[in-house]
Amino acid sequence: MVEQITSLQNQRVKLAALLQSKARTRRKEGKIVLEGTRLVGDALTQGIVPEYVFYEPASVDYDMLATIQNTRTTLYEVTDEIMRHVSDTQNPQGIIGVFRLPKPALPDMPQRVLVLDAIREPGNMGTILRTAGASGVQVVILAPKCVDPYNPKVLRSGMGAHFRLPVVEATWNEILGYCDALQKYVATGGGETVYSDIDWTQDWALVIGNEAHGSGDVGLRFGAGVSIPMASAESLNAAVATGVILFEAQRQRLAI
Amino acid sequence: MVEQITSLQNQRVKLAALLQSKARTRRKEGKIVLEGTRLVGDALTQGIVPEYVFYEPASVDYDMLATIQNTRTTLYEVTDEIMRHVSDTQNPQGIIGVFRLPKPALPDMPQRVLVLDAIREPGNMGTILRTAGASGVQVVILAPKCVDPYNPKVLRSGMGAHFRLPVVEATWNEILGYCDALQKYVATGGGETVYSDIDWTQDWALVIGNEAHGSGDVGLRFGAGVSIPMASAESLNAAVATGVILFEAQRQRLAI
Repeated sequence: MVEQITSLQNQRVKLAALLQSKARTRRKEGKIVLEGTRLVGDALTQGIVPEYVFYEPASVDYDMLATIQNTRTTLYEVTDEIMRHVSDTQNPQGIIGVFRLPKPALPDMPQRVLVLDAIREPGNMGTILRTAGASGVQVVILAPKCVDPYNPKVLRSGMGAHFRLPVVEATWNEILGYCDALQKYVATGGGETVYSDIDWTQDWALVIGNEAHGSGDVGLRFGAGVSIPMASAESLNAAVATGVILFEAQRQRLAI
Repeated sequence: MVEQITSLQNQRVKLAALLQSKARTRRKEGKIVLEGTRLVGDALTQGIVPEYVFYEPASVDYDMLATIQNTRTTLYEVTDEIMRHVSDTQNPQGIIGVFRLPKPALPDMPQRVLVLDAIREPGNMGTILRTAGASGVQVVILAPKCVDPYNPKVLRSGMGAHFRLPVVEATWNEILGYCDALQKYVATGGGETVYSDIDWTQDWALVIGNEAHGSGDVGLRFGAGVSIPMASAESLNAAVATGVILFEAQRQRLAI
């Protein structure tokens, strides 16, 4: 089913623009926006079907459009002006889907859990999710004060990781209960244990703290402090530090 | 010496704004701009003195200003309007210095060399430089087609790494000559050797390729292909992949 929309005042267009810019609207409406061939394709691959899709005929990938049509999703052909209005990017790829807000469940008996503590910068959050997916983390839990994972910049830098591993928000009490049976670690500059001295073949949960300030009091009490030895006066970007630790854990696991 | 500037038409103000936005102007004039307490402070710590400094009295850090004054640098007090005009950020920190373009030399007999091949995204380049500095790399060589390392976004995400390790542009012929005695590697998704199976205690040079397309033909011929095993369908951000490999190299070196 294809319909045409030509007005910026269309209710679906207005809603999609709000869903892009406001976390509050995403919560209230229970919907998110995915933009571009890659992200929409990643969702479809996981069997996640859009509620409706906007496409702009001059720039859309028609293979993708055919795939979406097979899911019986309603397609709205929109003008370049509408696509630019709804898009979060400078160069829209001609496809934007409105999806139901995912509500993934916490997996039972997890062995590798990443907990993010007040990660605020959308690009960092997305890169961390992507890194977690690539290194075999089974679930990412967002402790309080993290940026909304469905912020368009998080989605973009996550490169589809959102749909390949569960990303779940939780309180610290819930996190502590869930991770009860795991070895518990917190990445922190002053951590007593060097990351590569830890036995990551034991089931674990790791907290990564805020980009500028590290973990807060609750996060720091979560487990043993883990640090990465560095050349003097240097520091690491939060996503890079996360990658260094997670891939050391994966290296040990693959070496068994 | 303190003078006041109140006009956006002032020649030094116009030059600084051009130095911020145009790599060509930086090359032609042989000058760069450093912005904010952290970056200006990092340069001063390395004994690099500005040619002149703009400061905005309501937001500048006066300890930093006193330090600069001790170097006999000319200070220009500027208006908030001028500071915003010259600044590359939304919230200027009240201090901007114009410095001579650094011309670091290639160190003799290097043991750990990172070569960047067409890294285009400023945030990635800066994060990679920061990661290189933190992991004990001795020199970063920029092969052709990299973004200008003195782009303000590269400087910002580099967090001062530019002044703690030499960052040098070179042709592939120069790079091959310089790295002649080293073990040579290229990070690439299809690399035959897993990164953690390499003996990084031997002196090495490692090529990191373009974010989207990896290394080009010349880069791929540089040395043995090195890959990071990942969960299926996943990939890594270029800076994270660099961090994973460089810290494995450092881990092996520290374990000797």
